[in-house]
Amino acid sequence: MTESLDRTREAAWRAYIEASQLLFTQLEEDLRADSELSFADYHVLVLLSEAPGQRLRMGELANRLIFSPSRLTYQISSMQRRGLVSKEPCPDDRRGSEAVLTAAGLLALSEAAPHHLASVRAHLMDDLDDAEVACLTRVFDRLGRRLRAARTASSTHATR
Amino acid sequence: MTESLDRTREAAWRAYIEASQLLFTQLEEDLRADSELSFADYHVLVLLSEAPGQRLRMGELANRLIFSPSRLTYQISSMQRRGLVSKEPCPDDRRGSEAVLTAAGLLALSEAAPHHLASVRAHLMDDLDDAEVACLTRVFDRLGRRLRAARTASSTHATR
Repeated sequence: MTESLDRTREAAWRAYIEASQLLFTQLEEDLRADSELSFADYHVLVLLSEAPGQRLRMGELANRLIFSPSRLTYQISSMQRRGLVSKEPCPDDRRGSEAVLTAAGLLALSEAAPHHLASVRAHLMDDLDDAEVACLTRVFDRLGRRLRAARTASSTHATR
Repeated sequence: MTESLDRTREAAWRAYIEASQLLFTQLEEDLRADSELSFADYHVLVLLSEAPGQRLRMGELANRLIFSPSRLTYQISSMQRRGLVSKEPCPDDRRGSEAVLTAAGLLALSEAAPHHLASVRAHLMDDLDDAEVACLTRVFDRLGRRLRAARTASSTHATR
């Protein structure tokens, strides 16, 4: 069967998928316990804090998070209610809107980040030797680049 | 700041988390397009198909999936409506119940599996050399074991 994986690769795949799902659940539980933020909230706050003017168009944010437009609308509305972001019309396109980081959002991120990074270190990074760190960077940089290129190609194709 | 990561480790962490989130989204989209199953449906079907008698107690299934009891109830009810699993009282504990794989569930898994594995190969596994496969297995086996041990220890502690 050409679709199957050999045993060594199947073992690698299962170790990766199972441990990653466990890790993401654990990190989200730690984050909620320390800061009342979800993983998605945290990721939105990081992206906005790094963007020029601490603001991003909704479409760009959806692309970066790989969220559907409806999921992003739901996510941003929930963060708006908690005062973490605001939503404003785009200056150069009146039909579009931008998510803008509020001061409260930046403070929530600054308070959560040290706990979150400590949790990332404790669960994963402190256990890796330098060769393993280099291997993860190489494998997942390549994977991310390939997946992003494929998604860009298929969305360009779809809008033609 | 002791909680921060050095730059090399931060780059590895971001490459891993971003590419993994992209990958899981892509695999779920592929799965839904080929089979109308979600990632969680597929995982439940795999776990039940591998269990003795193709059945698992709800508590055990929740532990394996790291789902809260309410999330698992919702997940199993949805799969019951689609005829993929049934729910039966435990033979040795009348208050407990088990999820049981149906023939339709097994068929759905057999039809979805080759497509899903082809998608796992195309997006990730075929791109890795043998050293990278060995590195992923080593890192994520260790991570999974450590996280499972920590969860077991904290749930034992919590029920005392």
